[in-house]
Amino acid sequence: MAENFQAPVNKTAHAFDKGRLESMLSTRFFYAPAFEIYRGVAGLYDYGPPGSSLQANILAEWRKHFIIEEHMLELDTTILTPATVFETSGHVARFADWMVKDIKTGDVLRADHLVKNVLEARIAGDKEARGQAVRVVEDEKDKKKKKAKPVKLLDEVVAEYERILAQLDNYSGPELGQLLRDHNITNPDTGNAVSEPQLFNLMFASSIGPTGQHPGYLRPETAQGHFLNFSRLLEFNNRRVPFASAQIGRSFRNEISPRAGLLRVREFTMAEIEHYVDPENKRHERFHEVRDVELDLLDRHVQSSGHTTITRISIGEAVDKGIVANETLGYFLVRIYLFLIKIGINPKRLRFRQHMSNEMAHYATDCWDAEIENSTGWTECVGCADRAAYDLTVHSAKTGHPLVVQEELKEPIVTEKLVVGYDRKTLGKTLGKGFAIIQSVVGGMNEAELLNLKGQLAQGSAVIVSPEGQQFKLTPDTLSIEWKTFTQSVREYTPNVIEPSFGIGRILYTLLEHSFWSREQDVDRGVLSLPPIIAPTKVLIVPLSPRDEFKPLVREVSAKLRKAGVFSNVDDSNQTIGKRYARNDELGTPFGLTIDFASISKRTMTLRERDTTIQLIGDIDEVIPIVIELVNGSMDWPEACQRLSIYEGVQSLE
Amino acid sequence: MAENFQAPVNKTAHAFDKGRLESMLSTRFFYAPAFEIYRGVAGLYDYGPPGSSLQANILAEWRKHFIIEEHMLELDTTILTPATVFETSGHVARFADWMVKDIKTGDVLRADHLVKNVLEARIAGDKEARGQAVRVVEDEKDKKKKKAKPVKLLDEVVAEYERILAQLDNYSGPELGQLLRDHNITNPDTGNAVSEPQLFNLMFASSIGPTGQHPGYLRPETAQGHFLNFSRLLEFNNRRVPFASAQIGRSFRNEISPRAGLLRVREFTMAEIEHYVDPENKRHERFHEVRDVELDLLDRHVQSSGHTTITRISIGEAVDKGIVANETLGYFLVRIYLFLIKIGINPKRLRFRQHMSNEMAHYATDCWDAEIENSTGWTECVGCADRAAYDLTVHSAKTGHPLVVQEELKEPIVTEKLVVGYDRKTLGKTLGKGFAIIQSVVGGMNEAELLNLKGQLAQGSAVIVSPEGQQFKLTPDTLSIEWKTFTQSVREYTPNVIEPSFGIGRILYTLLEHSFWSREQDVDRGVLSLPPIIAPTKVLIVPLSPRDEFKPLVREVSAKLRKAGVFSNVDDSNQTIGKRYARNDELGTPFGLTIDFASISKRTMTLRERDTTIQLIGDIDEVIPIVIELVNGSMDWPEACQRLSIYEGVQSLE
Repeated sequence: MAENFQAPVNKTAHAFDKGRLESMLSTRFFYAPAFEIYRGVAGLYDYGPPGSSLQANILAEWRKHFIIEEHMLELDTTILTPATVFETSGHVARFADWMVKDIKTGDVLRADHLVKNVLEARIAGDKEARGQAVRVVEDEKDKKKKKAKPVKLLDEVVAEYERILAQLDNYSGPELGQLLRDHNITNPDTGNAVSEPQLFNLMFASSIGPTGQHPGYLRPETAQGHFLNFSRLLEFNNRRVPFASAQIGRSFRNEISPRAGLLRVREFTMAEIEHYVDPENKRHERFHEVRDVELDLLDRHVQSSGHTTITRISIGEAVDKGIVANETLGYFLVRIYLFLIKIGINPKRLRFRQHMSNEMAHYATDCWDAEIENSTGWTECVGCADRAAYDLTVHSAKTGHPLVVQEELKEPIVTEKLVVGYDRKTLGKTLGKGFAIIQSVVGGMNEAELLNLKGQLAQGSAVIVSPEGQQFKLTPDTLSIEWKTFTQSVREYTPNVIEPSFGIGRILYTLLEHSFWSREQDVDRGVLSLPPIIAPTKVLIVPLSPRDEFKPLVREVSAKLRKAGVFSNVDDSNQTIGKRYARNDELGTPFGLTIDFASISKRTMTLRERDTTIQLIGDIDEVIPIVIELVNGSMDWPEACQRLSIYEGVQSLE
Repeated sequence: MAENFQAPVNKTAHAFDKGRLESMLSTRFFYAPAFEIYRGVAGLYDYGPPGSSLQANILAEWRKHFIIEEHMLELDTTILTPATVFETSGHVARFADWMVKDIKTGDVLRADHLVKNVLEARIAGDKEARGQAVRVVEDEKDKKKKKAKPVKLLDEVVAEYERILAQLDNYSGPELGQLLRDHNITNPDTGNAVSEPQLFNLMFASSIGPTGQHPGYLRPETAQGHFLNFSRLLEFNNRRVPFASAQIGRSFRNEISPRAGLLRVREFTMAEIEHYVDPENKRHERFHEVRDVELDLLDRHVQSSGHTTITRISIGEAVDKGIVANETLGYFLVRIYLFLIKIGINPKRLRFRQHMSNEMAHYATDCWDAEIENSTGWTECVGCADRAAYDLTVHSAKTGHPLVVQEELKEPIVTEKLVVGYDRKTLGKTLGKGFAIIQSVVGGMNEAELLNLKGQLAQGSAVIVSPEGQQFKLTPDTLSIEWKTFTQSVREYTPNVIEPSFGIGRILYTLLEHSFWSREQDVDRGVLSLPPIIAPTKVLIVPLSPRDEFKPLVREVSAKLRKAGVFSNVDDSNQTIGKRYARNDELGTPFGLTIDFASISKRTMTLRERDTTIQLIGDIDEVIPIVIELVNGSMDWPEACQRLSIYEGVQSLE
């Protein structure tokens, strides 16, 4: 029986070191700049084997957590999109960022990022001048640039800078231009002044077909592919609302000057949900299941007042108080939270921030971002927007194809209306064109005017006058006005859309930061504490040496794991067992199985846990089911320690 | 015990009807033209819920069959690619098709497709004129166009047409132009003549970054992303060869005039493997496992002689006889075959065709296509090319980054060489520039010349003459020539690449054709007999009605299936059970569970099999594990029929 399984692991013995993490991610080929041997292209990254596998596992978990759990309708639509679609959706006119040009070199910078970088550097310089500790926020491309000059600022200047930074996302292009002038902001790379902010559209353009006559764009989001298929989706769902469509796919944004590694890239994998609801009923039938879950919220009012104070509040209370607009939005915020926690994001570094009014995308009426803290600050990783009826309405208007729900009313709506009847034959014959004028005048009357006309006719006749002053005399035999009963049994409406939209690369990168630490006794021994469900490899099988005598057991263990759906890797290289495990700690492999001479003679096998490096020992047929349960999450490590004995040879192997 | 479970199902009672299949696929939203409400764009399709799910299941099976089974290194690289990469790879110059223009309307047609369509139509017209049955090959866009005029041709003309068609892929552009003239081929849509064939590059172009100075393309294959990462992959694999990288992702080809539904599209999902081998050893360590598997082969010699005769042969024999070039290529052909059969492709409609020399892509030295027969003929669904060292060599030459393997030699290669030594000080001082001339002349000598010089020096002195006639006298103290021993312990080579490349959309569509049939008693009742492993939904739970009393059982059954990893759907709509099952037969759902009043009172449940429509009955806790085994493939339907009783109420429900 293992007694000391709770030996604490000190994961914070060494401060987080971004350079160390990045070097490890590169060496282990989690990801690397694309076209590296061609000197790369900013904002494009390739995922290597562990990165691809980690991404695939995150997506598989996403599919289970959202699509399968909520019976969403999955879609896979095209990236290439004809220009007319994005003209209608407003992206051609408005999906743009403000950029400035260095007036001498012509280098292009994103205006808001320029303001942010310069003001943050000045605040840091002020702190240094005041002798305060500076929390270094690293900039990927050039760490020196962010190093602040120690210049003390007036207290009111610091306060002003902090106010600007708190609502930076809320400024328009001309306002950013004013800020640049007011605060003397120049290109920090060159010291040169910059131009007035100009809009730059973020979509990549191309041309479809051999004649060059069909302009198109690469989609900047997967959402339009959902909306254009709305009628088919509704039909597939037996015409019932609410329902959701979901799609995992690549999108493209021609970022102005991407510098932040995986956090700002030009090509990325998204996972998007479009949840269609009745605008008059945004309740959610499973809201009661999540009501008591507490979230850290940062609403728009707090930000507008220049602050970033977090409120921790249950989603039930947040919806009751109107902080979060409705149950459906609230339900998804919690589901997003639960997903992120499940894959290993630190809940203490996760908050939900509401967009300010100028910050929102042109199609949104409300938006909350799940922001995750990392070495660059708080990063938007999931957006949860209420797009209202915007997209379905504009596409329907443009194409003439109705994108609406027709709902059979349980109780038909009965209304009484005045209906006008003409003796078309007589009127047409006697009045010719005059008949059309009468129809136009009478057709334009409201209920009161019609009632008045009805009264006159009841008295024998009435005279109506056209806008041009022409007079027509009407009698009850040529024109009748009667009350009629109308029964409406179908209600037609354009649904509203709640859209949770996940940037998978950003989530993956922040997860790597949250999972990374170094062993207390050796800072060079990095570990990625990824949860088993998303770890690239679940189990590493380590034979003592590549000698043939271990091979039958390796095959046996590997086959038994595979039969249970647990896929393992074998490392039979010539390196020491300790080195092989160290490599796999960096790859985030949670469990290791060592096969040695005792395995052959006595059928025992040791089971190693990545974080504690504790090894347990037991009969092969006893260890295998325990590993399977550990990987599937139906057993935790302390329980495994109760079931197997501690292996005392740990030190010699590590 | 069920006795009549082997009641035969007649799946061929009705001839295959493409129109019926397509209408069903559209109604059930397997896929649809993208941007349909904007009148669509040729060659772009969206997958709806069942299509997305079918595609995801095919890819999951692919990942298991190839990546996991063979421990391949998975990659996920970018679609956007700077132009310089495709300039190096040869795609900018050569990844093109021959197109012709209608000289009056300007309509663009693919030259080889034009020849094929017109000659096939003439042959069909000839058959009709001779009173033979015509096998109609349908053209998606316009079925009438393919309808042949019944014109009898001379026997030798028919033979000539057939010879041209058998080697159509082998013609160059000018040769296609000659064929058009020789055989009077015009645009069948208009009757107008067409232009000379011109090359049209199939890559979509775009521009990366805000300044428009970085031209790029959307990748037409995922392969270059593998090659550019070769060094990192080799390192990840502990510098061992052979190994393979694998990638699933979107690629783009600007097809000239796509008309064939999912079979020829402009944006598609590929799954590509690049297997790196020692060019001097293309044996495969698992070849013995597949040696006896028989394939239908159509090699290039048969095609060049104008025939399409298939040879059925074991892969072992094919490699021994040199029909298939090496074991690695042969191994992959079998693995491709096994994968396609596993997901439900009819093995009788699958052949492997070798490319003819002019047909091959510019980078390939040999290529075999897995072709699957469908309503349009034989379609290339998987290519298996030997790209030799082409790509790694050109990228290495362009970038200066070595893309090579360094192999430690077990026995070092020892060589003796003559080495020249100079007294640099003296020669430099006395001769100045003359020293450089001496070095150049001596450096250019071969072994015989050096031996001669060595002999002269041994005699006291030697005179050498520069190309310009300048003479230098040398003595043993200023110049020495000695034998030295060199030991080479590392062999460096550029690996060869074997590339199996899968077009997932083509496979998916042909699979739908192979799986589709109509019930003998009612041609309108279509069924998709998809294997459980790839069926979009595995189990449909059908409560008798949407009433609340059935809900607890529905939840219980659904939860128990989910716990075992089997995901089910519930159909509790108001339609009859028969109609609900008919809908799910069209969706390919293999099993159905009916929950009725007996389920509540006696805890019994019926289990329905899609193809036979036979229903079995048993206790809920007895039926669930059987369904799980059926879905996982560890039990077949006849065995299930042995374990449960036939439910006699079948007819009333259907």
